[in-house]
Amino acid sequence: MYTIDDIKHLLSSTDVIMGNDKHRFSRVADTANVDAYTLDWIHASNRDPLCYLRKSKAKLIIVPRSIEGDLSTDDLDKTIIVSNNPMLLFSRIARELFVLKPVPGIHPSSVIDPDAKIGKDVYIGPLCYIGKCEIGDNCIIHSHVSIEDNVTIGNNVLIKNGARIGQPGFGFVKNESGEYEKFPQIGKVVIEDDAEIGANTCIDRGALSVTRVGRGTKIDNMVQVAHNVQIGEDCIITGNVSIGGSSRIGDNVWIGPCATIRDGVQIGSGAFINMGAVVVKNVKDGQSVIGNPAEAKEIFALKRYELSKLYNIRRNT
Amino acid sequence: MYTIDDIKHLLSSTDVIMGNDKHRFSRVADTANVDAYTLDWIHASNRDPLCYLRKSKAKLIIVPRSIEGDLSTDDLDKTIIVSNNPMLLFSRIARELFVLKPVPGIHPSSVIDPDAKIGKDVYIGPLCYIGKCEIGDNCIIHSHVSIEDNVTIGNNVLIKNGARIGQPGFGFVKNESGEYEKFPQIGKVVIEDDAEIGANTCIDRGALSVTRVGRGTKIDNMVQVAHNVQIGEDCIITGNVSIGGSSRIGDNVWIGPCATIRDGVQIGSGAFINMGAVVVKNVKDGQSVIGNPAEAKEIFALKRYELSKLYNIRRNT
Amino acid sequence: MYTIDDIKHLLSSTDVIMGNDKHRFSRVADTANVDAYTLDWIHASNRDPLCYLRKSKAKLIIVPRSIEGDLSTDDLDKTIIVSNNPMLLFSRIARELFVLKPVPGIHPSSVIDPDAKIGKDVYIGPLCYIGKCEIGDNCIIHSHVSIEDNVTIGNNVLIKNGARIGQPGFGFVKNESGEYEKFPQIGKVVIEDDAEIGANTCIDRGALSVTRVGRGTKIDNMVQVAHNVQIGEDCIITGNVSIGGSSRIGDNVWIGPCATIRDGVQIGSGAFINMGAVVVKNVKDGQSVIGNPAEAKEIFALKRYELSKLYNIRRNT
Repeated sequence: MYTIDDIKHLLSSTDVIMGNDKHRFSRVADTANVDAYTLDWIHASNRDPLCYLRKSKAKLIIVPRSIEGDLSTDDLDKTIIVSNNPMLLFSRIARELFVLKPVPGIHPSSVIDPDAKIGKDVYIGPLCYIGKCEIGDNCIIHSHVSIEDNVTIGNNVLIKNGARIGQPGFGFVKNESGEYEKFPQIGKVVIEDDAEIGANTCIDRGALSVTRVGRGTKIDNMVQVAHNVQIGEDCIITGNVSIGGSSRIGDNVWIGPCATIRDGVQIGSGAFINMGAVVVKNVKDGQSVIGNPAEAKEIFALKRYELSKLYNIRRNT
Repeated sequence: MYTIDDIKHLLSSTDVIMGNDKHRFSRVADTANVDAYTLDWIHASNRDPLCYLRKSKAKLIIVPRSIEGDLSTDDLDKTIIVSNNPMLLFSRIARELFVLKPVPGIHPSSVIDPDAKIGKDVYIGPLCYIGKCEIGDNCIIHSHVSIEDNVTIGNNVLIKNGARIGQPGFGFVKNESGEYEKFPQIGKVVIEDDAEIGANTCIDRGALSVTRVGRGTKIDNMVQVAHNVQIGEDCIITGNVSIGGSSRIGDNVWIGPCATIRDGVQIGSGAFINMGAVVVKNVKDGQSVIGNPAEAKEIFALKRYELSKLYNIRRNT
Repeated sequence: MYTIDDIKHLLSSTDVIMGNDKHRFSRVADTANVDAYTLDWIHASNRDPLCYLRKSKAKLIIVPRSIEGDLSTDDLDKTIIVSNNPMLLFSRIARELFVLKPVPGIHPSSVIDPDAKIGKDVYIGPLCYIGKCEIGDNCIIHSHVSIEDNVTIGNNVLIKNGARIGQPGFGFVKNESGEYEKFPQIGKVVIEDDAEIGANTCIDRGALSVTRVGRGTKIDNMVQVAHNVQIGEDCIITGNVSIGGSSRIGDNVWIGPCATIRDGVQIGSGAFINMGAVVVKNVKDGQSVIGNPAEAKEIFALKRYELSKLYNIRRNT
């Protein structure tokens, strides 16, 4: 059982505690399964947060700033935390109290090259293969991952099961007989700090140069990142996306499920690639594209903030 | 060598044996490789079943009801089984006589958490990782599969090589600095009886709730099932499909290759999602949708039964 | 350090050495990282090869035939190789001198069925599972690959990490209760000489017949090859492509990223399937198709040679 005292250090300076601060909680849950001992929260975009608050069985709940002035005496029988970003605060509390972090160490079933350089407090799960590569501190690598030679991974990187990092890419040259001969694939992969790599995702090594995933960029499951691709910082790349060789993606780009980026294309920072888009030409900074072939659609750009909010709600609860 | 006596227990009450019942068979084959000792069959939708029957070299053949009255004395030198559904009967015979089932047991190269609960007559192939999960009876799990904690798998489930089940999902919240922080991903996965999970397919655990695959639902290779997705019973989900977080899919839904379902979308029972469809809004019961973005096309719905027959023919022979 | 003497045996009869033949080289690099000891090259389609030549810091460089007559005395302080296909020559030199081939042998962490037949000089990396199959000579199989029973693999085949070959396919028949029963999946896989199979790619065994990948065909990462598919020779099948059951693909076909081929479709030799194409009907020899659903676009066909050149440049450097 936890009380508000156990989480005070996670509150920001603008968060306010109201009501009866003696309630205790022991769990988190989705909306349908909230009980008296659940830490509950209301999304900032909820249409009727007061209604949600009064229906919630939780005794401890994080509410958005918008209803701070509307709380009644009855509401204040609960422990209420008023926050500008309830989802963020909830997320931090839940991560600290309820998300089990694997104990650092290397599972004995994994195969580690003697020349691999592995940082502090790294967890490597069962049945991984780790080649002549460098891995920073505090990384979590789940089962069945392969990391080949010439890969550099920063700190705090999460790599999910079955991800393939650093294998030779897909490049050929036709010979006199019309057969394909392999172009050398001997470059590197660099994955910067705080990145996340999804399950069964594939990141090929550069041909002669580097394939790069920028700091804080999150990649979902079964994403193809071909050789020489450059991905900026704080991007969201969702499931089944295919990124062709030598394409360049800026910072804060959002790429929807099953989108395809042609090889050599440049995607500007802040761009929004809608799901299923087939991107065959460059995309400007902040541009939103949709369709097959993908075209700019500003109407979608207008809805982006809203979409992004919806996205957060749906994806996270 | 088998005779009709070895398979009589598989016949249904409406199946009829005609002709010379002394013929023997020892194999099954595709149409191009049928010989005298092959158990052959004619699909119920074959346009000229009598012609097929007379050309087939097989001495033992399952034919559709439609030609029962047209058989001549010459035909009856063969052993003929007349059936309402020759494909189904053939399938049952072939499964019993010619499909090798792996011997139950756990390959010593697999890593099994001591808290895993594994049912009776389960086969776990080489190099799997099985976490703190529950697995029912008669399951077959091929090589390189990972099943993380908090997963519950029913009876008679088939999981193919490299499938990823129960890893943390893909959900984030932006913080004050514009960086993504991980939203907790601590829910469950439930896979019900008789389901099939394809090779390298990924099924993420719920964020706070459950990701569910319903009884009898068949999922092909490299399918993405994001967190909190609810899939009903007896669905067919073909290869490379991407199903976004928290979407809900009814019963008896058919989803074609490379289709993408947006997060949070609801797909009604009996819906037919054509290949490559990019589904951005809800789909009604029985509706057929197609295109990018996907739109309802009733003309396709009319053809569904026929398509489904073609599908069976092409996929299975 | 190497000199021109170390590579003379790789030159074709039409290649010409010009200039100062005493220069030495020790590395290859992408354009941005060329230094005096880099073996550099100029693509045959470079718009201003003389300009590139004069800017390159490399002392040894392969140039296209088109500028043979334009070289000045200053240029000839370098070692210059004039070639009809600089990329091909560069590729052959780099492969011989700079691409590390894994030492043949089977990693002890891999699980090999005692009935597997494995040829000469085969490398099998860590944590693979090799069933009752046949593997030819000089194959390279990277980590985490599974090859099930009934698979035949030719000589000089490269299989990347996590590829799944020979698992049962996805075929069902509905029974009286409306449930799906598995159609037998007991056929074979044949992969011919010089083929390449990408990371996490899945190739299902035939149902009753054979799934075949033709000689010299190159398949990228996360490609689905369903049961009974027939793929011809010297095809390029890029990432995330989905090929439906029993479809037939000719020789020299190019299939772009995320394209989907419907089950049972026939694709003629020399066809060009653009990225994201959803192919629902047959494609003729040499035809180029694009879109969802895919339609023929001859204008694209005209650009194919150019596209192909661009493709090589972008993918390979």
